Amino acid sequence: MKKVAILGSTGTIGRNTLDVIRHHRRHFRVTALAAGSNIRLLEEQIREFRPEIVSLERKEDAEFIRNRFKKDSLRVTHGLDGAQEIGGDPGNDIVVSAITGINGLKPTLAAVRAGKSVALANKESMVVAGSLLRAEARKSGARIIPVDSEHSGVLQCLAGENRRNVKKVTLTASGGPFFRTALSELRKKTVEEALAHPRWKMGKKVTVDSATLMNKGLELIEARWLFDFKPGELDVLIHPQSIVHALVEMRDGSVLAQLSPTDMKIPIQFALTYPEREDAVLPPLDLARIGALEFYPVEAKRYPLIRLATWALREGGSAAVALNAANEVAVEAFLARRIGFLAISDVIHRAVDGYEQRTVRTLDDILDVDRLMRERTSQIIQQRY
Amino acid sequence: MKKVAILGSTGTIGRNTLDVIRHHRRHFRVTALAAGSNIRLLEEQIREFRPEIVSLERKEDAEFIRNRFKKDSLRVTHGLDGAQEIGGDPGNDIVVSAITGINGLKPTLAAVRAGKSVALANKESMVVAGSLLRAEARKSGARIIPVDSEHSGVLQCLAGENRRNVKKVTLTASGGPFFRTALSELRKKTVEEALAHPRWKMGKKVTVDSATLMNKGLELIEARWLFDFKPGELDVLIHPQSIVHALVEMRDGSVLAQLSPTDMKIPIQFALTYPEREDAVLPPLDLARIGALEFYPVEAKRYPLIRLATWALREGGSAAVALNAANEVAVEAFLARRIGFLAISDVIHRAVDGYEQRTVRTLDDILDVDRLMRERTSQIIQQRY
Repeated sequence: MKKVAILGSTGTIGRNTLDVIRHHRRHFRVTALAAGSNIRLLEEQIREFRPEIVSLERKEDAEFIRNRFKKDSLRVTHGLDGAQEIGGDPGNDIVVSAITGINGLKPTLAAVRAGKSVALANKESMVVAGSLLRAEARKSGARIIPVDSEHSGVLQCLAGENRRNVKKVTLTASGGPFFRTALSELRKKTVEEALAHPRWKMGKKVTVDSATLMNKGLELIEARWLFDFKPGELDVLIHPQSIVHALVEMRDGSVLAQLSPTDMKIPIQFALTYPEREDAVLPPLDLARIGALEFYPVEAKRYPLIRLATWALREGGSAAVALNAANEVAVEAFLARRIGFLAISDVIHRAVDGYEQRTVRTLDDILDVDRLMRERTSQIIQQRY
Repeated sequence: MKKVAILGSTGTIGRNTLDVIRHHRRHFRVTALAAGSNIRLLEEQIREFRPEIVSLERKEDAEFIRNRFKKDSLRVTHGLDGAQEIGGDPGNDIVVSAITGINGLKPTLAAVRAGKSVALANKESMVVAGSLLRAEARKSGARIIPVDSEHSGVLQCLAGENRRNVKKVTLTASGGPFFRTALSELRKKTVEEALAHPRWKMGKKVTVDSATLMNKGLELIEARWLFDFKPGELDVLIHPQSIVHALVEMRDGSVLAQLSPTDMKIPIQFALTYPEREDAVLPPLDLARIGALEFYPVEAKRYPLIRLATWALREGGSAAVALNAANEVAVEAFLARRIGFLAISDVIHRAVDGYEQRTVRTLDDILDVDRLMRERTSQIIQQRY
């Protein structure tokens, strides 16, 4: 029976994680939940899974939950400190890190420092602090297991293979909702259209990143740190069906691929059971019914951000921190309807243009670059839109 | 430097094996070649690769070659004994078993008994004597590595996985040259049309088996013995592009697949270097250029032999021996233009109909069933066609 803490329990990944655990109660016990502000859902989750500790983003929400569970022995904390405490709690075996954006970094770092098995869904952690997290994991013995379907696929393809025989790793991208949209139409695309992802049900931020392909750009950077690949070994292919998640080309020309139904529960379960496997919670893949798996090269004109991500991937250092910060601010502005769809890329390009590389060694270094770049991006939006 | 003996050096697999070795001379030395009657090509191969011993099918061909290489220290033998001697020669590290049909069995068995790494392209060996070969390999420590692209794919997908987590193994079939032919047209199909395989360049027997899908049926039986799968764990999908060779479904719903360009040199090289890998001798797979990978269920009406093969797979014992013998005779008759394309299946069904299971423990038991079934099938052809 493994004890599981979930950071971000009311988000898409958190809810799917609890659904997987619901199917495998013999193997997992939920000991801790950290949520944002969805107190209604958190309350339900507490009643169903009976954790020992929960954390909420705001103090007043924590008070509310504390009152609702007065008679129980539930501990309730709040804020980043609360999430960090849960991440680092020595009582847990697995920490599912699923808080979105840069806010997920500190709790993830706490879990890594505590030597946990970290099921990592918060890709920003690896993007901005991959080098730091790898170093800390080496020290503490923590195991970082990806929850992203693409990286989960890579991990599965690499099993049993000698790493020096790996020549190239390809992550697939669905292409998002605008893959077949005429380029001239992109300018008019609304928030609703960007959020109507054809394959994956995900949070808003990730869904917009998927429409711009920045999501895949961040995943390239994440893959670099998760598996210690060189930038030149990483590639992207558009695959609208989202059935093949990753392809690993070996030096002899053989390619190993991982396929699964388009549902986050599969990689989540793999991260929880790794390196073992448990029974599926979904019907099996039926390729004869799906019929065809298509692959397309990435169109640079349609997805200008992928080149920027490749730049950050090769540049290393703080470039990925800067890119991620600019992207978070630009996507927020798009979701708040302050800028249009094409302006996301435009804003990020302006923010990163002429960016001067900085050495980032500590968490504070990273957060400094993050803050500066957020300010710079906000200014650009204010001045120009 | 591994010493390699090639049984069937002038056939398609043999020639491809030598081509792979030509690219990796640092790693392999050819010590022995066994060929059929293509003395011209064997002579070239001897001049290029300088083996220590060669064997030919007929005595007179052996005399001819002996005369041509009088001044050299080349040993020349002939017949099944010659091939068997090469298979069991303690001086070799790897034996490539690529003699077609039941004739490949005795030399393969000799190599397995001698504890070699056996790169197995002769699928009939495993089909008719899988149980025996497995038992002998266990005793001698021999390693049987498949050369068939499908089984090579399975082997690669299984690497690093716990076998009890495997739920289903799917071998792909191109569907052969008549995959899209109207059923009513099949009767008229000629030898030339049956040999015009859309994807693979292979020997005549295998190419016809590919048109009837018997090839895939035999591969299912082979897979059972190579990897110790249960009949119910094995499946077939039509995949006209022949890029995905095998798919392994794990219990959690993840599917691992092996892909490679449609060229036997890839699985041959993998069998020679296993469990390591060497650089490719071909350009890499370009999925964006290929565009789409299609999958179709197997149409029972188009491929009636697949059901017969599934019967033999489940039946076990001598059923596969009988089926294989009937198939070899029927395909020979088709290639000799004595019977039409649809008659292949008709003859085999009649030959196997009412077949009584026999226990086959020894090689002699197997060869008995094989001989009886060949006679029976020949009779059916004589009486009815």
